[in-house]
Amino acid sequence: MLKSTLKMSKRIRRTPFTVRVEKYGVSEFTVVNHTLLPKSFQKTVEEDYWHLRRNVQIWDVGCQRQVEIKGPDAKKLIQWMTPRNLNNTRIGQCLYVPLVDSNGGLLNDPVLLKISENSFWLSIADSDILLWTKGLATGANMDVQIKEPDVWPLAIQGPKAEALMTDIFGQKIKTLKFFNFDWFKFEGTMQLIARSGYSKQGGFEIYLNGANLGPKLWDLIWNAGQKYHIRPGCPNIIERIEGGLLSYGNEMTVENSPFECGLGNYVSFDDGINYLGKDILKKEAEVGSQRQIRGIKFGGTALKACSIPWQVRSKESNTFVGEITSGIYSPRLKTNIGLSMIQCGHWDIGREVIVRSDNNEFHNGVISSLPFN
Amino acid sequence: MLKSTLKMSKRIRRTPFTVRVEKYGVSEFTVVNHTLLPKSFQKTVEEDYWHLRRNVQIWDVGCQRQVEIKGPDAKKLIQWMTPRNLNNTRIGQCLYVPLVDSNGGLLNDPVLLKISENSFWLSIADSDILLWTKGLATGANMDVQIKEPDVWPLAIQGPKAEALMTDIFGQKIKTLKFFNFDWFKFEGTMQLIARSGYSKQGGFEIYLNGANLGPKLWDLIWNAGQKYHIRPGCPNIIERIEGGLLSYGNEMTVENSPFECGLGNYVSFDDGINYLGKDILKKEAEVGSQRQIRGIKFGGTALKACSIPWQVRSKESNTFVGEITSGIYSPRLKTNIGLSMIQCGHWDIGREVIVRSDNNEFHNGVISSLPFN
Repeated sequence: MLKSTLKMSKRIRRTPFTVRVEKYGVSEFTVVNHTLLPKSFQKTVEEDYWHLRRNVQIWDVGCQRQVEIKGPDAKKLIQWMTPRNLNNTRIGQCLYVPLVDSNGGLLNDPVLLKISENSFWLSIADSDILLWTKGLATGANMDVQIKEPDVWPLAIQGPKAEALMTDIFGQKIKTLKFFNFDWFKFEGTMQLIARSGYSKQGGFEIYLNGANLGPKLWDLIWNAGQKYHIRPGCPNIIERIEGGLLSYGNEMTVENSPFECGLGNYVSFDDGINYLGKDILKKEAEVGSQRQIRGIKFGGTALKACSIPWQVRSKESNTFVGEITSGIYSPRLKTNIGLSMIQCGHWDIGREVIVRSDNNEFHNGVISSLPFN
Repeated sequence: MLKSTLKMSKRIRRTPFTVRVEKYGVSEFTVVNHTLLPKSFQKTVEEDYWHLRRNVQIWDVGCQRQVEIKGPDAKKLIQWMTPRNLNNTRIGQCLYVPLVDSNGGLLNDPVLLKISENSFWLSIADSDILLWTKGLATGANMDVQIKEPDVWPLAIQGPKAEALMTDIFGQKIKTLKFFNFDWFKFEGTMQLIARSGYSKQGGFEIYLNGANLGPKLWDLIWNAGQKYHIRPGCPNIIERIEGGLLSYGNEMTVENSPFECGLGNYVSFDDGINYLGKDILKKEAEVGSQRQIRGIKFGGTALKACSIPWQVRSKESNTFVGEITSGIYSPRLKTNIGLSMIQCGHWDIGREVIVRSDNNEFHNGVISSLPFN
């Protein structure tokens, strides 16, 4: 595959941090929610991986746009969209909420933030959940207001994130528990900060409300971060795969159910709740899934990141039994690793398989559990 | 702005033609509908412009995915989504149908194809209309089936397109009227071909049904096109701006109404039809719009394509009066040209303005009508 430049236009939205990302040498982008997401800053993915595990990084994840849902029917509407039981949700809590359609197919896997009793944010992955939510509410004539507010998350990730954020925002940062948020002062505004992020190295996400404050927020963190060897970064593909963190559009699509994606813990069949696809998911829970997400470790030389899915084949029959949707070499585990969707009958941990990577190279592999360790 | 590579992953979908596009030297991509759209093949945009106006090009526009809507309520649902009166729509017809939400804000501007009495395709621009349509139908409990079929348009554009397509598909191609489609044999299948496309140079779009046939279709056209000097291409930004063709996400967003975008001809207030935002659009028709789409011709040196909107300022007061959302130098008109959204009071044809392009360069400009000529 050739290296191709990303052609810029207004349609590919910039974030409040894009000017800084460019200043600090972004060299690769992808597009999420019609918005730029940096993917590299002229370092190798391995260099970034080790830095993220040892220091602290600043990530422009402004592409994680919010769908704001307010009003008397807000809670009912959100419960209708997700199989997770939302009855005991607290203000200040973040919840991972897989969204499904009436066939039980995954539409997105956002984080839900309960802002107040009748006001919520869905911090979304790469599909237009704003349109899905507006469609449902319009069709069912629900009493809600739905919009995309001027909110752009900035992530601070890595083991030194807490020290850095405490330097800036004070001791209260330390009291934040994982997947909880609180409000912090910045430039005369109150900003939502959550202990969360798309890595397993610890850290925070600042849900910056007010695009005009973007460069100031970046500079504040950048300057205070110098003593912690801060670097610009982005979700790291090695770290993400090791941690078993899924990516909507890669590991899961509308063709997949939550059960297939290992998200059964987020599916409730409680009588008290009503959501789309409940009957179909109940049936799947009874009869079992056709395929499931698994890890695969596979040998051979160190591979670069998979950009087109790699086939997984049965070692016995050499037939197709699944595919690796995200894969790369782990310098820590000293093997190639992949997130894969594997057919029923072939997903037992320890089972041997064949992986076909780019250029028709074949590798011996073994099914493993997730996360990798 | 730096040149950045587009990082590939499964989430950024390939089309059935991507392997050929890579073979023939694609050098720039953008992302539309989570799908690759080529933007350059190692020629300058000017070279491609002149070639498109004189010869024939093959464009991978597989990103123009279809939303298929079938069933007893299909027509009612689609009419609910668009202010265009669909009462007299014929099978075999393509219709440009701006879609709006309940505020009259534009959600997309697809082409509607009436496949049979109760079956339609919406050939969409860059927003997840599949989710919007499913949301409305689910919320309102309508009797329809909605899906994204395995259909990937391939465009043949330019003055020699008709001769080439006639060589391949026979004389029946010549009988196709503009914005009509018919069915043609290919490899034992029947494929939909429309006289349409995202240029003003004439041509066709083949709505290939069956991704596995992609390379074969490309090769057939490529080989037959050699005598017409065929080249791989893509929507050309110079030609598109000259022709006044709008791009969803660039010239229009949910913040804009059809009237603002010069699409008033597609807004019907007939009593017989019911659609979202009708009352709000009626009010706008009565009181007038806040801003409107216009052309601008502006001087100075030849500019490269605008990737961040360029401000338009009043010549009298030097205040902001609008922005150019797509702009570039036209080698035929020998001036810079732009599509712009201009505030009320400043949009009269012939009015002088100031354009601020990248690097704070200022240019004298004049408001003009669209298309440019």
